[in-house]
Amino acid sequence: MNGDRRSARAFAPASVGNIGVGFDLLGHSIDGPRDVATVRRIDEPAVRIAAIAGAATGAGSLPLAAERNTAGQALISLREKMRLAYGFELELHKGIPLGSGLGGSAASCVAAVVAANALLDEPLSRQSLYPFALDGESVSSGSRHGDNVAPMLLGGVVMATESRMIALSAPDWLHCVAVHPDQVLETRRARSVLAEPYPLGLIVEQTMHLALFLTGLQRGDAATIREGLHDLLVEPRRAPLIPGFAQVKAAALDHGALGASISGGGPSVFAWFESKAEAEAAAPAMRAAFAAAGFDSRAYVSPVAGPRAEVMDAQ
Amino acid sequence: MNGDRRSARAFAPASVGNIGVGFDLLGHSIDGPRDVATVRRIDEPAVRIAAIAGAATGAGSLPLAAERNTAGQALISLREKMRLAYGFELELHKGIPLGSGLGGSAASCVAAVVAANALLDEPLSRQSLYPFALDGESVSSGSRHGDNVAPMLLGGVVMATESRMIALSAPDWLHCVAVHPDQVLETRRARSVLAEPYPLGLIVEQTMHLALFLTGLQRGDAATIREGLHDLLVEPRRAPLIPGFAQVKAAALDHGALGASISGGGPSVFAWFESKAEAEAAAPAMRAAFAAAGFDSRAYVSPVAGPRAEVMDAQ
Repeated sequence: MNGDRRSARAFAPASVGNIGVGFDLLGHSIDGPRDVATVRRIDEPAVRIAAIAGAATGAGSLPLAAERNTAGQALISLREKMRLAYGFELELHKGIPLGSGLGGSAASCVAAVVAANALLDEPLSRQSLYPFALDGESVSSGSRHGDNVAPMLLGGVVMATESRMIALSAPDWLHCVAVHPDQVLETRRARSVLAEPYPLGLIVEQTMHLALFLTGLQRGDAATIREGLHDLLVEPRRAPLIPGFAQVKAAALDHGALGASISGGGPSVFAWFESKAEAEAAAPAMRAAFAAAGFDSRAYVSPVAGPRAEVMDAQ
Repeated sequence: MNGDRRSARAFAPASVGNIGVGFDLLGHSIDGPRDVATVRRIDEPAVRIAAIAGAATGAGSLPLAAERNTAGQALISLREKMRLAYGFELELHKGIPLGSGLGGSAASCVAAVVAANALLDEPLSRQSLYPFALDGESVSSGSRHGDNVAPMLLGGVVMATESRMIALSAPDWLHCVAVHPDQVLETRRARSVLAEPYPLGLIVEQTMHLALFLTGLQRGDAATIREGLHDLLVEPRRAPLIPGFAQVKAAALDHGALGASISGGGPSVFAWFESKAEAEAAAPAMRAAFAAAGFDSRAYVSPVAGPRAEVMDAQ
């Protein structure tokens, strides 16, 4: 029974959406920047946002009106569907930069929902929390895609459909480098380049890569992951919008990456490696490639089987 | 050492290409009609086709010139790449109807290659035989797709890329019904309807289905296979070319099928079931649906983990 708890604090990790070959379908969490949500039970039957803080780019511009805020909407959805008599007051501390392609808006939803869950009389499973987090995430993206929310809720690599999350096994030696450059990618433009339809031959190649990727992951077979981790659908169209992308990807591959592509909607770039040592050696080279294109950046090295959102304290 | 063998006979099973969600990528063999190849070592450094027989539709129209025959070309390719001093004489017995969508041309290649392999001084692995079978198959299809050849070589469900075959595990309770109606689908027309490009949203849904299908198969989870076994890419365009398709598919689903779609390029229709009993109950209903549309048909019930091509005798 958690009914006597009045307040809980939870974090949600950043994530790499799409993982190249799984557009709007696959994602994995990373051990890097985090969003933290503090949720208090209040008697008033409503959701209020008390404050949004944090050094992360864009935190100051987020709406405080609960229904226009991803985390606020997630809690509204939780309250309504669970028919709760009480309400929530939310305080967000943004650690993940918005518009980075590292799941910044999803993390706020997930942290808020996981914190609020710790205050329910009967806490729900992660799977049961998924629709509420999706409801929140859709405020920012306009559509229900769980490729960031799902890996944050479950940890590691996750396949996300509209109705459920499926955790995929990932060998513990797999490591990721995610590099976030100081550049802004206009979401509208990033989406518009995907509108032109795709020929069947390309789709067949892409699905072959996805099938190899999933099989390699499931078998812990680096060579098969390497064959599969190669996006032909989205990367060729979006990469030209990210100055330095080709050089950063080349730097990763030169350092032995199994593959590299755009994280989420970009501009962050991720690469997968067979060991932590390789990932750590590649990270400065990837940053140097962004620097050569004129952009400062931050690099995060993490196991691909990254952490899941967790309650940090509750009282 | 097989060097003193002069003649070998092998069969190759029919197969279901694409399995709906894996266009040009997935296939599985079935325990149904078979092609049989008898291959003799001859001193002449060439490949000759002695005879093509069999009751299967179209057998009489197949070219006897080795380089224009799929099985002939497969043996030519084997001879040349292995730099054999001797040649082969081939006799084909067609059991799989041509133009049925059950892998008729692939089976001749595979049976010929497997029989010839038994006559090599040092027989090759199935993986090593794959490129020769693909070389043969491409004579008929014009492109190198292993979705029929690969499951015939390995048995069961196989993922086929241009360079290799990956066997996928399939639970033994999974059963398939493949129904071949007496109708002809013009290959050119079946291909032309696929030319118009596809929007991203459809591709995302299709890849989600493929990912669910592969995950369900790997976990032996019928509910997840059912979620995934649903082709949005090819079936909606090709189905209108197969009179009765919608009714046959509906009959399969009414009998509990996990999914149903077009086998290979059609006009055969396949459906997957959770048990042999369900498949056996559905088969007559699927045939009745074709009959109602005016077409006689044959139905084959088989484990999805079907047989692989095998040498029947060698001396």
